[in-house]
Formats: sequence, C-alpha cells, structure tokens
Amino acid sequence: MNIAIDAMGGDNAPLSNVKGAFEYLKHFGDDAANIILVGKKELITKELTAFPHMPEKVSVYDAQDIVGMDDSPAKIHRTKPNSSLVKSIKLVNSGDADAVISAGNTGALLSTSLFTIGNISGIKRPALSPFIPTNNGGFILSDAGANMECKAFHLVHFGIMASAYMEFSMGKKNPSVGLLNIGTEDNKGNELTRKAFPLMEEHINNFVGNIEARYILDGKVDIVICDGFVGNTVLKFIEGVIVHMMDWFKESIKSHPICRISAPLMAPAFRDMKELMNYETYGGTPFLGINGIVLKAHGSSSHVSIYNSLINAQHLIDTNLIENIGNRVASHLDIMD
Amino acid sequence: MNIAIDAMGGDNAPLSNVKGAFEYLKHFGDDAANIILVGKKELITKELTAFPHMPEKVSVYDAQDIVGMDDSPAKIHRTKPNSSLVKSIKLVNSGDADAVISAGNTGALLSTSLFTIGNISGIKRPALSPFIPTNNGGFILSDAGANMECKAFHLVHFGIMASAYMEFSMGKKNPSVGLLNIGTEDNKGNELTRKAFPLMEEHINNFVGNIEARYILDGKVDIVICDGFVGNTVLKFIEGVIVHMMDWFKESIKSHPICRISAPLMAPAFRDMKELMNYETYGGTPFLGINGIVLKAHGSSSHVSIYNSLINAQHLIDTNLIENIGNRVASHLDIMD
Repeated sequence: MNIAIDAMGGDNAPLSNVKGAFEYLKHFGDDAANIILVGKKELITKELTAFPHMPEKVSVYDAQDIVGMDDSPAKIHRTKPNSSLVKSIKLVNSGDADAVISAGNTGALLSTSLFTIGNISGIKRPALSPFIPTNNGGFILSDAGANMECKAFHLVHFGIMASAYMEFSMGKKNPSVGLLNIGTEDNKGNELTRKAFPLMEEHINNFVGNIEARYILDGKVDIVICDGFVGNTVLKFIEGVIVHMMDWFKESIKSHPICRISAPLMAPAFRDMKELMNYETYGGTPFLGINGIVLKAHGSSSHVSIYNSLINAQHLIDTNLIENIGNRVASHLDIMD
Repeated sequence: MNIAIDAMGGDNAPLSNVKGAFEYLKHFGDDAANIILVGKKELITKELTAFPHMPEKVSVYDAQDIVGMDDSPAKIHRTKPNSSLVKSIKLVNSGDADAVISAGNTGALLSTSLFTIGNISGIKRPALSPFIPTNNGGFILSDAGANMECKAFHLVHFGIMASAYMEFSMGKKNPSVGLLNIGTEDNKGNELTRKAFPLMEEHINNFVGNIEARYILDGKVDIVICDGFVGNTVLKFIEGVIVHMMDWFKESIKSHPICRISAPLMAPAFRDMKELMNYETYGGTPFLGINGIVLKAHGSSSHVSIYNSLINAQHLIDTNLIENIGNRVASHLDIMD
C-alpha cells in the first residue's frame, strides 16, 4: 500500500508533512503503508536529515513547483503540471499511490483530482465531507465547501455517497440522513431544499427529513446534507463559535472572584474542550465522488494532522471506500445521469 | 404612544403577552406607552383579572380568530382577517398603533405586514434583523430568515437599512458592514455573493468586504449581511451550539472528580452564560423595510421577552426608525428600483 503526500502543501510545509509521515512510520512500523513525499527534493531531503533512521518505507518524488493558496484552481493541472499538488494526484491516477493527502489549496486539489483521476461513474460533483465530532457521536457534513451552487439531485448524490462512506468506512449501519433546512415541514426552505426534499425521500434509504441547524449537534442524524456554501459556513462557524464561547466563559470566570480562585481545578475539563475542538485529531477529509482516495487536510495542519490523515487514508484504502461508493451509486442509477 | 400586541401569538399566549404588558406598565408607569391587547376578548379579560389594579393604559381589542404556526402565511390577511395577528397589524396601518409586537407565525407576520402596511419606498424585500450579542458588543444579522431567495441588490438594501437602524436606534456611528462569505477574497463564494460584493462596495459606506463565519462573533463587523436561508441557519445554529457546548463542558466536568467537586464554585459563571444565551433578554426583532414598526418576538417567548420587546418598540418609535431608514434609502436611489 502506497500513500502520496503533497509535501509542499499547507502553511507549515514541508516540515509538518515530513514529520507527520515520520511519526506515522515510527508508530506503525511493519503495518504502515509506504509513503511517497512529493515536492522539492532538496528541501524534503534536508528535512529528512532531522529524522535519523528513516525507514525504507519512505521515498521522495521530485516536484519543483508549488501551488499557492491564491492560485486560481480551475486550470492548475495545466498551469502547474510540475507542482507537488498535481504530481501527487497523478500518482493516484497512475496507480503508483493508493491515496493522496494534501493540506494545500482546496479548490486546486478538487479540480486537479476531477481532471486527473475523474469522478465515480454517475457522480457529477464530488463533495467535501468532514466528520464533525459532538458529544453524541458526531455526524458527516456534506457538502462542506466543494460546490458553491448545487442542483437538487447533487444533494441526493451527496447523501448516497456519505451513507456508503459512513456504513463501510465508519461502521455505522444504515446511517440516518437529514436535509439541512430552516424548518422541519416538507415545504420549508429555499428552492433548492424544496426540490431536494422529495428526491431524497425517494432515493435515500434512511432519510429522516429536514433538520434545523440548531439540532445538528444533538446526534439526531448521522449525515447532514446541504450545498457547499451553507456547509462551509456551518463548518467555519463551528470552528469560530467554540473558541469564542470558551473565551467568553473564561472572561466570565475572571469577573467572579470565587470562580477565578477555583478555575485551576477546572483545568482538566478545559483541556477536554480544547482537545475536542482540535481538528488535528481528526485528520484529513475525503472528497466523496472522486474515483480515488484524495484527502484534504486543514491548511494549517501540523504533523499531528498529517499523522492522523495517514491513518485515515490507510483505513479508507483498507475498507475499499471507492469500490463501496461505486457499488452504492450503481444501485441508484435512476438518480444518476 | 400606542403599541399593539398580538395577544394570541406565541406558544405561551395569551398569558405571556398579558403578563409581559402588565410588567412593562408597572415598571414604567407614566413613561410607558399605551398597550392594545389584540385577541379573544373573553380570554384576555380573564387573564387580566390575575393582574389587579391594571392601569388605564391597557385596552383590549377583540379578534376572535387565531393564526396557527402551521397556517400558510401567503394569504393570511385574506383567509383570517379577524385574527389577532392581522388585526393588530392593521392597527399600525390605521395609525391607531405606532408599533406591533407578535410572537406568532413569522411568515404570516411578514406577509400581512407587507400587504397591509406596505414597504418603505424603494425596498422590495424586508429583512429580519436580530441583534446577536457577543462578548465584543454584538452585531446585526440581516437577513435572518425573511427571504429564502435573494438577488444581489436585495443584500445591498439589507446593508443600507441595517446601517441606518444601527446608527439611529442603536447609537453606533458609521457601523461596519460585512458580507458573509466562505473566503475573504472578492471573487469567493456563490453567484449571489460574487454579484453582491461589487454592489456593496459601491453603495455601502463602511463596507469592509467578505467575512467568514468563523469571525462573525469576534466583533470585526457591526452588521453581517447574507440571504435569509443562510442567515436563519446561522441564527438557529447559534442557539443550538451554545446549549450544546455548555452541556458538553458539564459532561466533561462530571468525568473529572476534581472538576466535579469544584463545579459549584463555578455557578456564577455558568449563570452568566445562561443569561447570555437567553434570547428573552433581547426581546423582539424588527422587520427592516416594512413601512411601520413590526417586531417579531421568539415563538416560545415568556412574559420576559414580551416585556423587553415593549421596551424595544418604544425605543424604535422614540428614535424614528421608519423615518430614518426612509431617509437613508432615499439617498441611495441609484440602487433602488
């Protein structure tokens, strides 16, 4: 099993990527996949010297160009064919890698994957589908930012793919699917959700109807479906609101002497919250619908996120993500085009 | 000054409305506005007996019909002309009331207001514009749920109206306006936000550009503009996430003996958080763009929310909300039709 890493992707590249790979290889030893670090050979080799006794399982694949966060994603596979991002995705297409991980430009990752690897037959729009942890087990949010404009049948596709992903790679049988909406009644929402509702009812096994944003954290549904604009807004808001609430709570503690004095005793609970908020723990997120395993890691990933992304990638390969989604999609040809 | 209350509106009607009015009149005495309780006379009169020495400032205006939460809003002014909701709004149109408060069906309140009172000249779409408190002063979210589909110029209107509202009724000079988007660059987002960006840049005085959801609680902008679907999602998510986070934190506290023992000492800070989350404290929210003061109170309002809504209504009348928005809109005729 081989996993490619876009070693130049992310705010902390290449060190975060090299270190994440090293920690993973050290921890899993013989059970680890082989790692292909893709990027500027001289830079990566220099970083590697910091990790003595680097196992044989790592190799470096040279790519001299870098995709920046401001690069326009649409034609990056043509404008920067020698970039680490494009070359690492091509390794999946050629079969030299079974999965790719990148903390780089999300749009470039998506468009290059689509142009290079292509989509799963029947799927037009891949969806970014992160797992959002909650104290009730968590849920998958799909699409969380790949598609700014969606048609109703795209939302149905997201639901079908996320169901297969959750069932086969996360071990949740017949996961429930909700449509993110502003009310629970069938006729609520905007044109998109009103059109999507009956289609989801018809095509999705365990569709539980509309779900309001206030209840998505309560564990009522396993999968929350929405367009990528709304999903990205929710995803980013979760990140912001948790930090904000804890800061607010800390300020309030400071304003009450009795709370201030006892605050140090609360340190373990604060640490729990900090850990829960930490996206690094959860690693990269797959684009469901690409005909290969492409994981997007957070732009500001440290080695911890890359380490966990490698675990995710290995698990998705082991559980045959692409094949399982493909089979599920094939059983829904009536809503594919 | 007269304020009408849709006494039959809301989950706790009519008691919550009658009690809220009574508390308000008791507290403000001679400075209070006159209250017109609109609804089933026999029911309201019965509730009133619980409040001895009811001041002369309250009157009852009979309306035998009730608009339910499931009633289709679009033609409610024709299908239920004798409802408390419709009759209380008509009091504003006839000049018998200077403002109306309802905890009833939001869509019915909006459509009846539009058909009965009409819109401020130049404005096509009124916007629900609640104030969201934060530990940095808070912001106005507009539109928070009145318009599921918006055109780019509607968003510009929301920004112009919210600016006037914040400046004249909330005392914030030249408030900053941000466009809720999935990235900060000009070209980010969906078709709506990409089209709205240059228009807002051209027409809104203190437009600060796109703002990502993760930063809206940080006090970086005074006004956050978005379509009503996204705004309602954010609004409801705020309600849900705060409760969820605090529950989560409490569970974490229980799991650590040292935290569990010291938790009672934290009670004041927990009380602060509970109060901050309490929408009742902030009272009803105006529909900006209606040519009269119409306040929507939360559906599950208790008397506290009605009490605070009455204070809000009086303040909006005192600060000439409608005239100020009208003047501001008139100075932007180039983006009105």
